[in-house]
Amino acid sequence: VKRLEGQIAFILEIDQLKRVLRQTLVTDQSRRENSAEHSWHLAMMAPLLAEYAAEPADVDRVVRMLLVHDLVEIDAGDTFAYDATANIDRTKRERAAADRLFGPVTGAQGGLLPPEQGAELRALWEEFERGESCDARYANALDRLQPLLHNWKTDGGTWRIHGVRREQVLRRMEPIRLNMPRLWPMVLAIVEEAQGKGWIEE
Amino acid sequence: VKRLEGQIAFILEIDQLKRVLRQTLVTDQSRRENSAEHSWHLAMMAPLLAEYAAEPADVDRVVRMLLVHDLVEIDAGDTFAYDATANIDRTKRERAAADRLFGPVTGAQGGLLPPEQGAELRALWEEFERGESCDARYANALDRLQPLLHNWKTDGGTWRIHGVRREQVLRRMEPIRLNMPRLWPMVLAIVEEAQGKGWIEE
Repeated sequence: VKRLEGQIAFILEIDQLKRVLRQTLVTDQSRRENSAEHSWHLAMMAPLLAEYAAEPADVDRVVRMLLVHDLVEIDAGDTFAYDATANIDRTKRERAAADRLFGPVTGAQGGLLPPEQGAELRALWEEFERGESCDARYANALDRLQPLLHNWKTDGGTWRIHGVRREQVLRRMEPIRLNMPRLWPMVLAIVEEAQGKGWIEE
Repeated sequence: VKRLEGQIAFILEIDQLKRVLRQTLVTDQSRRENSAEHSWHLAMMAPLLAEYAAEPADVDRVVRMLLVHDLVEIDAGDTFAYDATANIDRTKRERAAADRLFGPVTGAQGGLLPPEQGAELRALWEEFERGESCDARYANALDRLQPLLHNWKTDGGTWRIHGVRREQVLRRMEPIRLNMPRLWPMVLAIVEEAQGKGWIEE
């Protein structure tokens, strides 16, 4: 019963990810996207675009990785990709959140879940953050692609709102060039169009 | 390129699931939950509660099934479980939506995705709807459990708002009794508490 209680407590706890707002707009521009629905969107994309991954990815692992990749934002908040200051202590804030939600790396104590389940989610999150495995590289590329598509479909979206520059966008999209190279021409075409329409600055 | 265009069009199309509001409230009671974040929540739950499934489920398949299970609501809307009238033509509306989003059952034409990808998503959705396989039975039980937990944590939530009766709730939770029997005592305890607090009617 203790075990089930912890699992149910965790399931109710993560409902809070639905309150974490990202900068990205939903495509009808009515509001900002939250991190829970963003995670769902990425998890849907992973099987559909797997054929474009530069290296063969374990799609089911990637789906699970994407489902948990933003959970630490429940405590740490969403950090806007183009906000250099906020990104300085992002790692520290997110690590503390991971300790509380998943339990510490040692698996000894803390966390709401049974230790082995907490450790599994933590490992997936750490792998995503490090971005060094095939699966993590593909997951990271998808995490860059989805906001690009949203900014494209929302007349420049957060690029326009925050005055983001072309070189910043291209640097941010680098994981797509490296890990989904066949999508790179599309990315460049979108950036070109965005610049032509004045949505991003030179 | 045609293939990629269809995949990207589908990915942008399904963003609309974030606009489909369910009756369920998020746990801070600030607003109704949308079907995209609900799907994310269920996909998170599937691996965590797999040990309670009455029959062994293929968890990765269940995750994918839960990610797509509500997509037809983009056209058909969310149908409130306790609204008998709206549920009469639900199947017809959802089938038309599936034809448009995934392509028709034959796989011949229609749909935005490459036919084999559309057919795969459609098959997962049909399997969930039929509820006859081990995986679908487990997925259906989770789809009942999550709103129960939310109603519990939101002072009766939609039960209270819509004056739902105890026997309606218990009938609705039947998939949990059948497919996650070890959770049934918890379900009964929650229903008991809800009735004690006047959240559901006798």
